[in-house]
Amino acid sequence: MITIRGGLTAPKGFLAGGVKAGIKVSGRKDLTLLYSEVPAVAAGAFTTNRCKASPVKVSQMHLKGKTHQAIIVNSGNANCANGRTGEKDALDMASKAGKLLGLDKRMVLVASTGIIGRKLPIEKVAKALPGLAAGLSKKAGSDFAEAIMTTDTKKKEFALEITLGDSSVTIGGACKGVGMLYPNMKTDKHATMLAFIATDASISKRMLEESLDEAILNSFNMVSVDGDMSTNDSCFIMANGLAGNKRISNKGSDYKKFTAALKYVAAEMAKMLAGDGEGATKLVEIEVKGAKSVDDARKVARKISTSNLLKCAIFGADPNWGRIVAAAGASGVEFDIDRMDVYLGPVKALSRGAIAKTFEKEKARRFFKGNKIRITVDLNSGPSAAKAWTCDLSKEYVAINSDYST
Amino acid sequence: MITIRGGLTAPKGFLAGGVKAGIKVSGRKDLTLLYSEVPAVAAGAFTTNRCKASPVKVSQMHLKGKTHQAIIVNSGNANCANGRTGEKDALDMASKAGKLLGLDKRMVLVASTGIIGRKLPIEKVAKALPGLAAGLSKKAGSDFAEAIMTTDTKKKEFALEITLGDSSVTIGGACKGVGMLYPNMKTDKHATMLAFIATDASISKRMLEESLDEAILNSFNMVSVDGDMSTNDSCFIMANGLAGNKRISNKGSDYKKFTAALKYVAAEMAKMLAGDGEGATKLVEIEVKGAKSVDDARKVARKISTSNLLKCAIFGADPNWGRIVAAAGASGVEFDIDRMDVYLGPVKALSRGAIAKTFEKEKARRFFKGNKIRITVDLNSGPSAAKAWTCDLSKEYVAINSDYST
Repeated sequence: MITIRGGLTAPKGFLAGGVKAGIKVSGRKDLTLLYSEVPAVAAGAFTTNRCKASPVKVSQMHLKGKTHQAIIVNSGNANCANGRTGEKDALDMASKAGKLLGLDKRMVLVASTGIIGRKLPIEKVAKALPGLAAGLSKKAGSDFAEAIMTTDTKKKEFALEITLGDSSVTIGGACKGVGMLYPNMKTDKHATMLAFIATDASISKRMLEESLDEAILNSFNMVSVDGDMSTNDSCFIMANGLAGNKRISNKGSDYKKFTAALKYVAAEMAKMLAGDGEGATKLVEIEVKGAKSVDDARKVARKISTSNLLKCAIFGADPNWGRIVAAAGASGVEFDIDRMDVYLGPVKALSRGAIAKTFEKEKARRFFKGNKIRITVDLNSGPSAAKAWTCDLSKEYVAINSDYST
Repeated sequence: MITIRGGLTAPKGFLAGGVKAGIKVSGRKDLTLLYSEVPAVAAGAFTTNRCKASPVKVSQMHLKGKTHQAIIVNSGNANCANGRTGEKDALDMASKAGKLLGLDKRMVLVASTGIIGRKLPIEKVAKALPGLAAGLSKKAGSDFAEAIMTTDTKKKEFALEITLGDSSVTIGGACKGVGMLYPNMKTDKHATMLAFIATDASISKRMLEESLDEAILNSFNMVSVDGDMSTNDSCFIMANGLAGNKRISNKGSDYKKFTAALKYVAAEMAKMLAGDGEGATKLVEIEVKGAKSVDDARKVARKISTSNLLKCAIFGADPNWGRIVAAAGASGVEFDIDRMDVYLGPVKALSRGAIAKTFEKEKARRFFKGNKIRITVDLNSGPSAAKAWTCDLSKEYVAINSDYST
């Protein structure tokens, strides 16, 4: 497994483009397209929010098809809570993009991010599409990563290579999302995080779906910026087979190697999201171990990752570990506090339910002053572990979200 | 039902006191006592956090007894995550207070609030107790309300009178809690909100417990400042019978009148908590109606009340109703967005899943500039309703919680 440069267009046969369609008030890039030169199998995971944006509904419907070749994405407008007009506009985006690319609309997937409850300016999309389609290229992969940004401060791309049999297989991804970020996605269900992954692996649609499910569980679905689950969260993967590896059609060793690589890509992208959370100054990794089950470990880790109080303490470099204890206890998971240990980085704070005799607050405070914070909770009650990622909660988060006007 | 002045000592036979024991670094009042001149029946509801503070465990144990006569409370130290020492100290608080008052320790209930994970300075408690016990009085009811404050900016007291038969019955309360505030309490289980209610009603212990359960469900358990459930939340009620009403021992009309009054007291106290939330500039009331069940309505209302994004928008007076839609959809309750209406105060924003044709953003913004914000969500799917209370999320909240040092 080798990390390489680039993102979505690193795998063979993928082209991209990103343009300014005038949807964003800022005038920045806001319409983008990912295109596979050959038909690809695709899978998608979407928010489990009851109020799903129109593009989510359209993509879910289109994913019932066998193969796909393009994803059209706009930022600046979520196309959510727009009633029937919203669905018509999302379908229109797909069919207009399809027409330009010579594809049936059902081969085109759709995603949107931005403000909820405002009509998508489909006429702006229509006007910008021909230039976008004509300008598709390998090197514009990073334009894609730029054009999906909203309050993101940096582009988020990642790529790696693995070897399956005699073939070199590449997986590349791009993602966005730094607020309203608390995805809980499922394949065949629904997260405004947007993540796009492209690979030239040859794999069946069914195996691709299963691999994606495994990958999101311990990556995107373990990230929180603010605990607010979006109406638009979507994670797409397209696999076009151009690597020429022996097609993965069962859970053999190639599936396991591919899935391990996909998990790595997804986890790296998830960390980029948390680290760039709105107003964030620090990336926080919370590992829970010694849990009775992975599900328990995930619940405790995720609950800690959404504690406003802890996130404020981390912003202030205050090693207030009591807030970790309180959050863990509020997770709904049954455990015994008298067996619980808590570490702030390398510093043991809680030992079997009471303050560790060796705890040095100033040492912990120094550690909390860094920009990568690691918290470990050991429940000492079982074999299972999970990691969650979040960021600190700063005054800037409040500024961004009280000024970000409708 | 008449609202009257005063708080905990408004009912007959209750005395209180509050002193400076030196537990708080600020040097403010931090030790307080509520005393009934005659034995009272008592009930308590406590946090459902797995990590329960020692005073919670001790109070739960003592509440197994038939009658109680005092509650000793310290602020500045949560006495949580202190292992066995914590429990010994909490018991010590009860027994030392009991000794001075001539009561068995099991007749004394205990509560603590403050920093987690630091040993309770029991010697300071012991030193201050004699003065506290000697100074008990009717007029010191408000000292009690003062001495339980941590980051609260104002004392929270409320009292009212009802008539049962020929007797005038008084219910008075005091509470604190403006951060780590997301109680979910149950009687015989466990919320650092602290609420204390005293009444001179004559009522059986069993009926008092049931009445308290009904009252907290639609009051304290529907308040959120930050979504962080405490290890120490406790709500106590003592009923000493001195009003002389016919003893309430079944769910007849007197029970219903008493419970209606208790619900009113608890709801008024709950609103005081939310309105004084850390850094709060506005009190927010969220009403969900048209739900299939009360439980559904409660879940949707509570989920909306914990949306950081919505709370930031309210701080900025931004009528960003899309954040209400997203939060409602993330509640886990099944409903159809195409039937959903949302009102910002009197202004209809969402109508059957799409923006209301009559929506005037500037009108909504003017409403959001007030300091009491009312949001109504109508799911149009059933007969049930519930209300939740929260406050806006300000830069000051972050300042308070990143500076509030361990």
